[in-house]
Amino acid sequence: MITRTDEHLDTEASPTESANGAAERSKRGYASGKDDYLARLRKIEGQVRGLQKMIEDDRWCPHIVTQVASATRALQEVAVGLLNDHLRHCVMAAAKGSNVDGQAQLDEVATTIRQVVRL
Amino acid sequence: MITRTDEHLDTEASPTESANGAAERSKRGYASGKDDYLARLRKIEGQVRGLQKMIEDDRWCPHIVTQVASATRALQEVAVGLLNDHLRHCVMAAAKGSNVDGQAQLDEVATTIRQVVRL
Amino acid sequence: MITRTDEHLDTEASPTESANGAAERSKRGYASGKDDYLARLRKIEGQVRGLQKMIEDDRWCPHIVTQVASATRALQEVAVGLLNDHLRHCVMAAAKGSNVDGQAQLDEVATTIRQVVRL
Amino acid sequence: MITRTDEHLDTEASPTESANGAAERSKRGYASGKDDYLARLRKIEGQVRGLQKMIEDDRWCPHIVTQVASATRALQEVAVGLLNDHLRHCVMAAAKGSNVDGQAQLDEVATTIRQVVRL
Repeated sequence: MITRTDEHLDTEASPTESANGAAERSKRGYASGKDDYLARLRKIEGQVRGLQKMIEDDRWCPHIVTQVASATRALQEVAVGLLNDHLRHCVMAAAKGSNVDGQAQLDEVATTIRQVVRL
Repeated sequence: MITRTDEHLDTEASPTESANGAAERSKRGYASGKDDYLARLRKIEGQVRGLQKMIEDDRWCPHIVTQVASATRALQEVAVGLLNDHLRHCVMAAAKGSNVDGQAQLDEVATTIRQVVRL
Repeated sequence: MITRTDEHLDTEASPTESANGAAERSKRGYASGKDDYLARLRKIEGQVRGLQKMIEDDRWCPHIVTQVASATRALQEVAVGLLNDHLRHCVMAAAKGSNVDGQAQLDEVATTIRQVVRL
Repeated sequence: MITRTDEHLDTEASPTESANGAAERSKRGYASGKDDYLARLRKIEGQVRGLQKMIEDDRWCPHIVTQVASATRALQEVAVGLLNDHLRHCVMAAAKGSNVDGQAQLDEVATTIRQVVRL
């Protein structure tokens, strides 16, 4: 987890965020779906713990791989969901505001899509 | 997690396993790397918990997606590692055994590779 | 190739396109990079022909797979490039237009991202 | 396409191949499916030409991306098919021969799987 630089990046990536950060943050693209994302991530956490149990119990290798693939897919569903929420809310808002803000946010989205597709 | 049918599948998928299951299981392809896999999975579990924290803290969406991509990649490394361990040990053993056992194991490997590549 | 329904979908997906289609089309998100995309696709076409030659010549299987992976990656670069061009131009335009148009375009983008990530 | 070093790699990767190369080559893992692979690759070549036509005709961007995703998937099906044929024939044959040959081939397969999964 790269957490050290996150705060800095937050500021940088979201230039419209000001001293009034708390109010802005409540408008995150995924705000309305927070509980759903948390539930999905808790389920994925349980899957990863289940994988450890399978290894400890010397389970049959292809069955473990099948479960790893299932957890991987669930994580990518979360990534794509967050990305689409972000486009729908933050990017649209920025684009309505100014072209410069909109383009800056789309540059960041482009980088993010490449990470999800793994290019 | 599909756990109900695992035991049955274990038996089915590994037809050479007999009453002497415990001894056989100690020969899993990943046996020598168990501690490494467990350490990696515990780290991934921590990453998934970190993702929940990021959502709770209303972090900037693209940063969350970056961390999801990082956890996804770590999971796929585990899948490919297990697959290769499996090929290296179980498939080699199958090659020395009967053709029928070998082909059955390779059918299972083919299915597993498709799940990892997501086809 | 699903070509039968393309024209219909074109109309449907791009509701701002009117009788003045030609002028609109010159504004495609990838318009400024058309030559680059064509050059990349011609190169990929050559790679796919090279793969046929490798099969005909009974080349060593893992080497063929390496070249398939190279062509696959080049195709995904094209997909992500087009997607980002699309976001940059069409979505920005949609943001300036009506909310209904913008949301319809983002629904389509969401579907497209899922296809590229293969979910 | 990396073609310069292929012949060298062929020799290196398949140490059982001798002066009697032609006969050996007829035993490639995909030999029995050559016509099928050629037909699939010709279809993919046609898809890639169709993509060029879509770009030339200024087609709607998400529709092009959908077709790129379709060609990408077809290529990955070829990769996984070749990989499984290879395991089923060449790797099994090597493993039945000597442990050293079998392990050397599995090392190569491990690298190839990583390329297909893109790690």
